[in-house]
Amino acid sequence: MEKSPGSRPFPEITYCNLGNPQALGQRPITFFREVLSLCDNPALLHRDETRMLFSPCAINRARKIIESMPGRNSGAYTNSQINLSMQILIRSQEDGILCPLPEYPLYSASIILHGGTMVPYNLSEDGDWGLEIFEVKRCLEEARIAGLTVRAMVIINPGNPTGQVLSITNQEEIVEFCRKEGLVMLADEVYQDNVYVEDKKFHSFKKVARSLGYDENDISIVSFHSVSMGFSGECGRRGGYMEICGFGDDVMGEIRKVASVTLCPNTSGQILTSLAMDPPKLGDGCFEDFMAEKEDIRLSLAKRAKTLASAFSSLEGMTCNKVEGAIYAFPRIHLPAAAIKAAKAEGMSPDMFYACRLLNATGIAVVPGSGFHQVSGRNKATGTWHIRCTILPGEDKIKAMIPRLKEFHESFMNEFRNRS
Amino acid sequence: MEKSPGSRPFPEITYCNLGNPQALGQRPITFFREVLSLCDNPALLHRDETRMLFSPCAINRARKIIESMPGRNSGAYTNSQINLSMQILIRSQEDGILCPLPEYPLYSASIILHGGTMVPYNLSEDGDWGLEIFEVKRCLEEARIAGLTVRAMVIINPGNPTGQVLSITNQEEIVEFCRKEGLVMLADEVYQDNVYVEDKKFHSFKKVARSLGYDENDISIVSFHSVSMGFSGECGRRGGYMEICGFGDDVMGEIRKVASVTLCPNTSGQILTSLAMDPPKLGDGCFEDFMAEKEDIRLSLAKRAKTLASAFSSLEGMTCNKVEGAIYAFPRIHLPAAAIKAAKAEGMSPDMFYACRLLNATGIAVVPGSGFHQVSGRNKATGTWHIRCTILPGEDKIKAMIPRLKEFHESFMNEFRNRS
Repeated sequence: MEKSPGSRPFPEITYCNLGNPQALGQRPITFFREVLSLCDNPALLHRDETRMLFSPCAINRARKIIESMPGRNSGAYTNSQINLSMQILIRSQEDGILCPLPEYPLYSASIILHGGTMVPYNLSEDGDWGLEIFEVKRCLEEARIAGLTVRAMVIINPGNPTGQVLSITNQEEIVEFCRKEGLVMLADEVYQDNVYVEDKKFHSFKKVARSLGYDENDISIVSFHSVSMGFSGECGRRGGYMEICGFGDDVMGEIRKVASVTLCPNTSGQILTSLAMDPPKLGDGCFEDFMAEKEDIRLSLAKRAKTLASAFSSLEGMTCNKVEGAIYAFPRIHLPAAAIKAAKAEGMSPDMFYACRLLNATGIAVVPGSGFHQVSGRNKATGTWHIRCTILPGEDKIKAMIPRLKEFHESFMNEFRNRS
Repeated sequence: MEKSPGSRPFPEITYCNLGNPQALGQRPITFFREVLSLCDNPALLHRDETRMLFSPCAINRARKIIESMPGRNSGAYTNSQINLSMQILIRSQEDGILCPLPEYPLYSASIILHGGTMVPYNLSEDGDWGLEIFEVKRCLEEARIAGLTVRAMVIINPGNPTGQVLSITNQEEIVEFCRKEGLVMLADEVYQDNVYVEDKKFHSFKKVARSLGYDENDISIVSFHSVSMGFSGECGRRGGYMEICGFGDDVMGEIRKVASVTLCPNTSGQILTSLAMDPPKLGDGCFEDFMAEKEDIRLSLAKRAKTLASAFSSLEGMTCNKVEGAIYAFPRIHLPAAAIKAAKAEGMSPDMFYACRLLNATGIAVVPGSGFHQVSGRNKATGTWHIRCTILPGEDKIKAMIPRLKEFHESFMNEFRNRS
């Protein structure tokens, strides 16, 4: 990018490339922040003025938290919690982990860093990014033939970058499959509060397994959740947890030992996690405000999801599945041959070429689908091209973004449509 | 421990086993916590009542921080920072890292987890826990003969668990040694604000190297610091940094890439780190209060260090080096033969046996020296026995602790002195 300000035909960059809600204007939940603020500065709990600035609900909760903390202060080490899984599962390069394609790249990065092998399976774009068991089975068998011991299967639901919510029937098939094949289920369920369609609900894989009659002895499930997403959007606070079901005491002991090498997670993140897990309840003074803030955020995200997906679908050569959950649209672009050729000439993948042109012309930053390894789908004769675009900019910003997007897209297509 | 409360001859446990200042009553620095509290709840910045509860200094700083943050909020992802080193240095089991004995066990744990080999060198108890270059050289040569590639040397200054502050002459020798042998210096300097003796000062290894005329081309140094210790004692906030000097751009690029896999560190920790690095200055409204709090903490710790070390030294069969820095006393215990025999009969190391007896009789929790692998010093004909005891309990608590310690020790020695 040029260094001289004003040399671009847009006033600012719209960061649709990263799921970073508060950087895009999502306001934090008042109750959460009041509690954190009081825990940081417990002296406030003894001042009269505090009652003018904070809700009684937040004051009570902060008092409880501070009383439960070592030294009655939020700066001490707390107990070490659990924050790892690839480290435990991977012993060598011969250990494989099934992961969806398009993938969330931190999974492959983590598998590589721990010396294992990623075994990708393709999600079905034509089937609303659903997970087809025969495809997963095919990949598992290929990996076994290649000499790998496949230890676990990653499932992201709601999906990142693909935004689908798995149907319960699909979830049941996955549980049966993992149980039969002896795979640990690594259930990335961090978007569980981000569901936007009426006909689908979030169900945890643990609940699905239990409803099928399987208990801790039948299947091992690790579920991940975090305060980064959902309605709280507190990415920077680094709070989250994993629930580990169906492992022996010996394994749990080793997990705790490895976790304790990094000592405790940060106290703000832990406090936030405790608030998200134990939110205000009916009857609490701040219950209604809390619920209203939460539902406002969800409804607004649902509206933005719909607006963006239909805007993408209205463009020539673009198709976009419904954004059922999570915080991303992942539209497919059918690019003219001349655009693909021009990308190659610049040493870029075609979707990267498109994303760079879009950024330079409009300031809208998106991630090319090849960043999620979508293009390398093994059973595809030719690559497919996508972009991932968060639904996080405020409703006004999205409204303002769409005409710019359309104008750019038309001129891009005009430029390349008739070239040879 | 029994489950029935009141069944022990002490009212509560005194946790001298962990360097956890705020759990033992150290109060956090007011300025730091006011800023954190405001950053958590920036709505306070627009309220009049806030001026009655917070210093103008803290209000100004919080405003600056919030304005510099993505989305003007402390919940967004920020830039990824650096938080790793063993991962970068260790390629295989043939890679060795020199570490001091007695050791801080997270170093050996981290080396093991990353698949490398720890190469221990002994600190000299008779030389005030100083570092003797001929001993380090002996260990380096032995490791090389055994086929290891030694890549780096860990130096902890001020020392943990040993509490020494290295002399500048000693530091110069270490720099010369690492430069000559091509070792990366891993300088654990987290206790740099915890120095209690008049005749010694903290000098960073970077400064010592530069004063000898060595620049980035001559020697590679990584210095670690954190907000956990020093006067802030904010362990639970997980804020810290490493400064990396003398590595090429290619290595720095890889370090940033690996760091980014864990996304950004938590914002509270980052805010605290920024405050500790850029504290109130002369002329700022809160400068004098800030300096007074800081110096109060240091002076009080200095007093406690002296009191505890001389209490230990006054006991039969115990010798304790001066606690020059950090937050631990590491006295040596010369145990009667019968006590060592009794420990063996219970399948414990003698220092663990002593520490358990101490805990059960008095509620004082310390860590046996064998937890720091002190006993395995290779050039020692017989093991030596130690305990590590933090100096963190408040002055009153330490005063109350000492008679209980003395009484226990006398009765322990009486029990075992004349047994065969």
